[in-house]
Formats: sequence, C-alpha cells, structure tokens
Amino acid sequence: MSIALTILGCHSATPRINAFPTSQYLAINNSHFLIDCGEGTQRQMRKYKVGFSKINHIFISHLHGDHFYGLVGLLATFGILNREKELHIYGPKGIKEVTLLQLKISQSHAHIKIIFHELFSKKSELIYEDEKVSVKTIPLNHRVYTNGYLFTEKEKSRKLHIENIRNYKEIDKADYLNIKAGRDIILSSGEVISNRELTIPPSKPLSFAFCSDTSYKPDIISIIENTDLLYHEATFLSDREDLAKKTKHSTTKQAAKIAKEANVNQLVLGHYSGRYKDISLFKKEAQEVFKNTELAEPGKVFSVK
Amino acid sequence: MSIALTILGCHSATPRINAFPTSQYLAINNSHFLIDCGEGTQRQMRKYKVGFSKINHIFISHLHGDHFYGLVGLLATFGILNREKELHIYGPKGIKEVTLLQLKISQSHAHIKIIFHELFSKKSELIYEDEKVSVKTIPLNHRVYTNGYLFTEKEKSRKLHIENIRNYKEIDKADYLNIKAGRDIILSSGEVISNRELTIPPSKPLSFAFCSDTSYKPDIISIIENTDLLYHEATFLSDREDLAKKTKHSTTKQAAKIAKEANVNQLVLGHYSGRYKDISLFKKEAQEVFKNTELAEPGKVFSVK
Repeated sequence: MSIALTILGCHSATPRINAFPTSQYLAINNSHFLIDCGEGTQRQMRKYKVGFSKINHIFISHLHGDHFYGLVGLLATFGILNREKELHIYGPKGIKEVTLLQLKISQSHAHIKIIFHELFSKKSELIYEDEKVSVKTIPLNHRVYTNGYLFTEKEKSRKLHIENIRNYKEIDKADYLNIKAGRDIILSSGEVISNRELTIPPSKPLSFAFCSDTSYKPDIISIIENTDLLYHEATFLSDREDLAKKTKHSTTKQAAKIAKEANVNQLVLGHYSGRYKDISLFKKEAQEVFKNTELAEPGKVFSVK
Repeated sequence: MSIALTILGCHSATPRINAFPTSQYLAINNSHFLIDCGEGTQRQMRKYKVGFSKINHIFISHLHGDHFYGLVGLLATFGILNREKELHIYGPKGIKEVTLLQLKISQSHAHIKIIFHELFSKKSELIYEDEKVSVKTIPLNHRVYTNGYLFTEKEKSRKLHIENIRNYKEIDKADYLNIKAGRDIILSSGEVISNRELTIPPSKPLSFAFCSDTSYKPDIISIIENTDLLYHEATFLSDREDLAKKTKHSTTKQAAKIAKEANVNQLVLGHYSGRYKDISLFKKEAQEVFKNTELAEPGKVFSVK
C-alpha cells in the first residue's frame, strides 16, 4: 500500500532552460499512471528513469500546450519502441482527433493501439478502475474544459485476526475464506462469533488528487476531502490574485485554503508562473494557511505509505 | 557577407537526455531562419540564445515527429509573447491543417499571424527570396515527402574601383550610380571606358544546403554544387548500409560522396541513430571520402565568411 508521485515538470506556460511544463508520474500499488504531458515529458521520463513500458494509462487535464504538447512525441516513441500493449488516454473531447491527425501525418507509427476516453461531463465521474485503484474526475474551472483527477486505492478486505480465531478451536482453516468475505461464524453450539471479532480492519485506502489548472473552486473540496496528497496549482503569489482571477488560475493562499478545508494531509504546489524567480516564496505564503505544504520540483518524489 | 549555422539538435528519432531532434538556426547576412523543429527546439533556442523575435521564416523538411513536433509549442510561445509580426512556415502539404488544429484546440494563441507555404512539387523550386537571400527546395527521397533547402546569398553588384576611376578626371561622382548599375562611361573625346575597368567584382555569394532526411540521392548534386557549407544527414555508419536503404536514410560515406561530387567546401554530418555511442566514428569514416567533414553537435556554430 503506497503512493509515489514523481514530478517530471511543474512550471506553467512555455518550457525554459530549467522550467519544464506539467507532467507527473504516479505509482500507486503496482499501477503506473502518467498525468499531463507537456513538451519534453519523454525526456524528463528518461532523466528520472520512468520506464516507458510501465505506462498504460495517461490522464490529460486539459488541452493547453503546456499540458499536452509532449503527448504525440511520446506516442511516436512508443511506436519506435514497437509497443504492443494497449494504451489508454483520458482527456477532453477533441484529444482523439488532434492526436490521430498528428500520428497519421507522420505515417510511421500508426500501429500502436490507443484507446481514447474523451471526457465532456461537468460532474465528477468514475473513469477508471482496476482491482486496486479507481480514478475519478475533479471538474475544474479554467479557460478551457479541464479536469483534475483523484486516484484512490480500493478499500481492501478485512484481515484475519489469527490470535482471536485461535480462541475457537472449532474454527478451521477451511473457514478462513468465509471470514475474509465478511461472514460471521456459527459454532456447533449455536453461538454466533461476529466477523468483527475475527478480523482486523484494513489500512485506510490512500489517495492522491491532482488539480491543475483552475481558479479557486471550493466545490472540489467534497471530492478531495481527506486526501493524503493533494497537488494543487498555484500559478501566482497572492500579490497577483487579480491576474489569477483573470486567467482562471490560483494563488498560493487559495490552493492552501482548499487543502485546509479539504483536510488533506499534504499539499504540493506547482505550475509557477515564469515571472517569479524565487519559488520558495510560494511555500512560505501557503504555509501561513496550511502548514504541511511542499513545492513541486522536477525529479522530486512525494511518497505516502 | 557571412553565414552562421547554429546546431540546436542533431539526433534522429526520439529525444533523449543528451540527444535532441533536428533543428538548426541559420543567420545569413541579416536574415534569420529556423530549419526543422523537433520536440524541445524552443528550449534549445533559449539555451543557445537564439532570439525568438528574429525568426520570421521556418522551414520544415518533412512531417516526421523528430523534425516538427516542437513547432506547435514554439508557435504557442510566440502567442504568449504577444508576437505581432507575420510568421512564414514552409513545409509539406498537410502542415497547415495539423498545426492549426492544435492551435485551435488550445484556444489561447490563435491570434498570431501565420502564413503557410505548403510544398508538394517533386522538382527544385524557388520558395523564398528577399534582397539578400534566396531559398530553393532540394527534393529528397525519404519515407514521406521531404525537401532539403538551399540558402544562397544574392549576387551583389560590382563595387567601384576608385583608384581606376581617379585616372579619369572627367568622371564625376554623379556618374557613380551609372557605374554601379553596370554601365560603361563615354568620355567627351568619344572614348568608351568599359565598366569592368571601373569596377571590382563582388565576392562570391555564400550558400548553405540542408539535406535531411534522405537516402543516397546523387541527383541533388546539380542543385547543391559548389555550396560552401553542406549539412547532410548520416543516420548510420557504413556497416548498416542495408538499414539505411530500408529506412531511406544515408550512411557517412554516402553523405561524404555527395559532398565530394558536389565539390562543397565543408560537410557537416548529423541525424545520428541512437544505436551509436561513439559519434566520432562518423567523422572518421566520412573523412576517408571527404576530408573537410565536421560533426553537428548541439550548440556548435559553423561559420562561413
């Protein structure tokens, strides 16, 4: 049970020498996800040793260039690497047409199997689940249709409380499956042993919420409540709240307020505007509202266990 | 009268940590051109201090990702920088549709003025000229429609041979424009002074030929003959001539043979396949055929004066 989030890029707008547009690699249990894919993401993946073949699901928040212009290059590389596995791409309506046109015009790599999941709902919806993880959209408010994504471990089944079970000699290993399935046990005497006595609750499912880009949007709090790790964009310091409002972005304090009110454990900030030379101010400002705040930086890994 | 070619990227296929796909910045007299634009080009431009606002003409050889996936990001950045000047893009038919669709879907930067010049001819044609430079296509042979580009200074007018002119007291400054225009001078005695006596020939127009990607194609020699500087792709060493043929690329020796037969002054190799760790072998092999060979490397500048 663990989450490891690797920041590949965390700056807004144009790529610069030491500023890489948004992309994150999320390992949650044994599932591996890529979130957003700005220009240069594949190079950042190589730099931070993210195995290309691990990625089967890519989630794109919105179709601004700094969040998806690196996607087609990554797909072409998958083609060059003779990828055979299916690749699932989740993103706003339109992503399929523009991606396929680019691949078609290059002719060479049309053979990779891509399944597009185009999103258009303005409500939070379940868009992915496997045995261990589910992914829900977090509708955001930006200049174009945008979703954040909430990654949550599946609730695990209760574990056997071996010590308590051993108090009942009559209970046999053959009953273990029933106990794991949540059933009570009826002894030959007719006594009912409650499942709660024979099992231990599982650890709390871990979760990670990715929120970029968005204006201050308190109605996402009900979706991301109690999340272990929240990445929330903070394009501006509080001095430019006017510009944040105009461009539909957030300030440090707005992001921190969301974190505080959603009672998350840790907040990670990113998507810094290029106008700021000293990124440490973002942390300082946010911590006035929400103490457990950290800054996204390329290559930094945030773990939850 | 000078040419300065800055290599921004010179590796084939996928971007890697220290391998950047094709892009070159050419300054010829006071004109500035970008040639090809693989993913990450705008970051390389910043790294090597190529002013974004200088670029008014971009030439794309073909629509494989490693030659144009960085274009849309650069255009979006031009938009963010509030570029007002017209931008001319030359490239294969299809480049307009795919570029405009990407810009449209991002919504934000549709306001930059782009004039597309879509190419489809299989013959060399003049596609650009101003007072000082002309650009012709060099039809190449690759898996998709591909052109190289030949950049040539315009022939300058002959210069005044002041010393000789002074031998004729009768010749006045008012005659200089006529002399520069190539006219002979008739003295009052009726004697005709030939223009050749009164002028000096201009220096030879400089030229640069960019040839990527292509199989060995000797019929380009007549187009690039006597060029000062030739960039020719060499994806493979001679050991993989089979693979070069199959993928429609060139080997070192094939590139060198073109350089030798076209009687160019200097050959620059690039577009190295990722399979080779030691790039110096490319130079060594090519020099067996054509001595004045150099290797493209990111940041390297090749000058002709």
